[in-house]
Amino acid sequence: MMQVHTSNTAATQLAEQAQDSINNERLQKAIAALAQFGGRDDGGVARETLTPIDLASRRHLIELARSLGCEVEIDECANLFFRRPGSTDLPPVLTGSHGDTQPVGGKLDGAYGVIAGLEVIAALNDAGITTRRAIEVVAWTNEEGSRFGPGAMGSSAYVEPERLTAYRAVLDKDQISFGAALDACLAEASDVSRRAPLRPLDSCVELHIEQGPVLERAGAGLGVVDGIQSVRWFRVVCNGMAAHAGTTPMDKRSDAMAAAVGIAQQLYAHAAQEAASNVRLTLGRWQVGPNSVNTIPGTVEFTIDMRCVDASVLDRFEQLLHRATADFPWRGNITVECFFSRAPTHFPQAMLTLIERACTRASAQAGRPAPLHLTSGAFHDAMYLADYCPTAMIFVPSKGGISHNAAEETAPEDLLLGAQALAYTLVELASR
Amino acid sequence: MMQVHTSNTAATQLAEQAQDSINNERLQKAIAALAQFGGRDDGGVARETLTPIDLASRRHLIELARSLGCEVEIDECANLFFRRPGSTDLPPVLTGSHGDTQPVGGKLDGAYGVIAGLEVIAALNDAGITTRRAIEVVAWTNEEGSRFGPGAMGSSAYVEPERLTAYRAVLDKDQISFGAALDACLAEASDVSRRAPLRPLDSCVELHIEQGPVLERAGAGLGVVDGIQSVRWFRVVCNGMAAHAGTTPMDKRSDAMAAAVGIAQQLYAHAAQEAASNVRLTLGRWQVGPNSVNTIPGTVEFTIDMRCVDASVLDRFEQLLHRATADFPWRGNITVECFFSRAPTHFPQAMLTLIERACTRASAQAGRPAPLHLTSGAFHDAMYLADYCPTAMIFVPSKGGISHNAAEETAPEDLLLGAQALAYTLVELASR
Repeated sequence: MMQVHTSNTAATQLAEQAQDSINNERLQKAIAALAQFGGRDDGGVARETLTPIDLASRRHLIELARSLGCEVEIDECANLFFRRPGSTDLPPVLTGSHGDTQPVGGKLDGAYGVIAGLEVIAALNDAGITTRRAIEVVAWTNEEGSRFGPGAMGSSAYVEPERLTAYRAVLDKDQISFGAALDACLAEASDVSRRAPLRPLDSCVELHIEQGPVLERAGAGLGVVDGIQSVRWFRVVCNGMAAHAGTTPMDKRSDAMAAAVGIAQQLYAHAAQEAASNVRLTLGRWQVGPNSVNTIPGTVEFTIDMRCVDASVLDRFEQLLHRATADFPWRGNITVECFFSRAPTHFPQAMLTLIERACTRASAQAGRPAPLHLTSGAFHDAMYLADYCPTAMIFVPSKGGISHNAAEETAPEDLLLGAQALAYTLVELASR
Repeated sequence: MMQVHTSNTAATQLAEQAQDSINNERLQKAIAALAQFGGRDDGGVARETLTPIDLASRRHLIELARSLGCEVEIDECANLFFRRPGSTDLPPVLTGSHGDTQPVGGKLDGAYGVIAGLEVIAALNDAGITTRRAIEVVAWTNEEGSRFGPGAMGSSAYVEPERLTAYRAVLDKDQISFGAALDACLAEASDVSRRAPLRPLDSCVELHIEQGPVLERAGAGLGVVDGIQSVRWFRVVCNGMAAHAGTTPMDKRSDAMAAAVGIAQQLYAHAAQEAASNVRLTLGRWQVGPNSVNTIPGTVEFTIDMRCVDASVLDRFEQLLHRATADFPWRGNITVECFFSRAPTHFPQAMLTLIERACTRASAQAGRPAPLHLTSGAFHDAMYLADYCPTAMIFVPSKGGISHNAAEETAPEDLLLGAQALAYTLVELASR
């Protein structure tokens, strides 16, 4: 093993011991085992939040955590906490991510951070390490926001419990409320003790796949996430008049799809002009009514996801959006609603310094390049925890930058590096 | 009653007697009764083909026809025939339309033609008229084509039974085959005798709402339909790559929605250039995958319905479509499939002359302007019957030209005119 300079405190020695105790085979097997829940033939995973498959996967995690000696708790938003006690009752160090996926996602987005957290606990058991603070692994509820919007309901409700009231009223496409789905989940977990709201945390570290191409292109195995870019979600509803496709002259139509396409085209054109800002524009969800070959669409609803590290770029986008919808020349009407908005997140320097140290050691031991600093294009549960306690994130590469897709993948050696860096970081934090 | 010149044969006298025997109250009540099946609070009707509601409405029609003394038959495509025998076994005169609706349609599209046909039979019973030829009222299966494409399966399979094999394999969005839905319908109608294929017909007259604004603008109560405009349906599938909305740089995307919007925009622009040709372009059905706010669409499928009386206009459109999809500058691929195409239909002059006579008398008696000649923008079952026997259509106005919509409506006095013109026409034809 090549020599690596490290600081020399007892905490660091424990951290290094923990990092070196990560069991790669156990880690890979645990990732594969969780991927069975909602696993598809194409390698993807379909495990939307609070579905029967999600509930089954939660039971699997509860049993896995208990087999590692963890205390398990669940809160009002069905967030699951797996606790490895420390030698004191000081506020714990939290890690973990989410267990839910997109309608069709991969086996790593969210799941990797939860499983790696449990692997750290198993490694500490192997090494016989007792930390000063407890270490808790969390599986947040509904990070994806695909079944119930917005995303990150679990983590945002943890730091701001009053959000839950509004969240409970949100309906999925089958008119099932988030509240009803939550209650069914809590009933299934009736053997799990209930966690009080707003429990203090010492700090939080989320390990996640990058879901983008930056680390892969740089050949780096680990990324230190400096922050998370700004994001805004809009819902545009074009209300025209459904009518017969064959009999209604073009100049007598109120075609909601013609309006939606015209507006979408302006947005894409503006994104091309703003390319230098690295803005990202996605019109991801479309609902057309009545959605029949020979009927003029009467209503078209589509969503806009715009992101940029530079909020002023999003301001210009928003101005264009309101101008384009207000001025659109047709008989119908168009409404625009911003249903999610988030300013950029900047993680504290002290956390970044510690994570860089952890990532540098793990990378060096594997003979890999130094960790890269980058900004997250995706938003994460850590975005909300950053409002609550010192928080940071560690990224591992995503092959081809592909995510929210069955083809999502990360090399096993990179998954190992991430778990090693996480072990080091958690033990350092839990030793304070 | 004002004096009207009419020709003087016995057939015409019977035709006039039948026309004057139409019972307006019974007609309106029968329309309302059928509208109960799938009726919505907003006045619309949701009765897609071969759904449980459609089957219940068929049972209602069977009992109504039997109460009028009709013999009932059903064929392999579940087309229902209600027969009032004549004094001979000569091929019958056929009328009627379809009982199915769009996902959300009105109470008249199709249903009016069936109910008006049964009202003619009731009127002939009242008047004690026996015609030389039998008069048959048909309710065709799946004219709308919204659940199973293409439309007019029942009438096209009647004139060309070998079509049925391919139709039976068509799946709806729940993966139910048209064949399976047909068999369930035939089982429910096991008490109805089976009709042999390709039974000869003397002639066919379809009464229908215009579904457009032409008659209303002219103040005419009746329209003589000279023919049906040309129509082509295409399915465009854009295959890109689903990926994370926040982490995938714009220049690394293969965004199926950006491609679909770009192509749709070109089609709408071309339609604007061709406005003089009175071409009609509708992009009615859109399916987006995975259809999530924060995932770049990986697949977008949309349909194109283009219609014009001038087929060369559609040829130019088709050339543009293939050019636009072949040249589209992106990483993904695009397929274009024409899944329905129909040349213009021209109804025979002898039928138009008779219908004009029937419509002129009914309009004059009501003190309304002379009937208008027009081309149908919608396609109808009569389009296929025109290949099989002398065929024509009668139109009544649609308020605001609205159809395929819950707001679809026709003034009761116009519905009466249509039934009167139909009675006259059928008796003239059945007397030959």
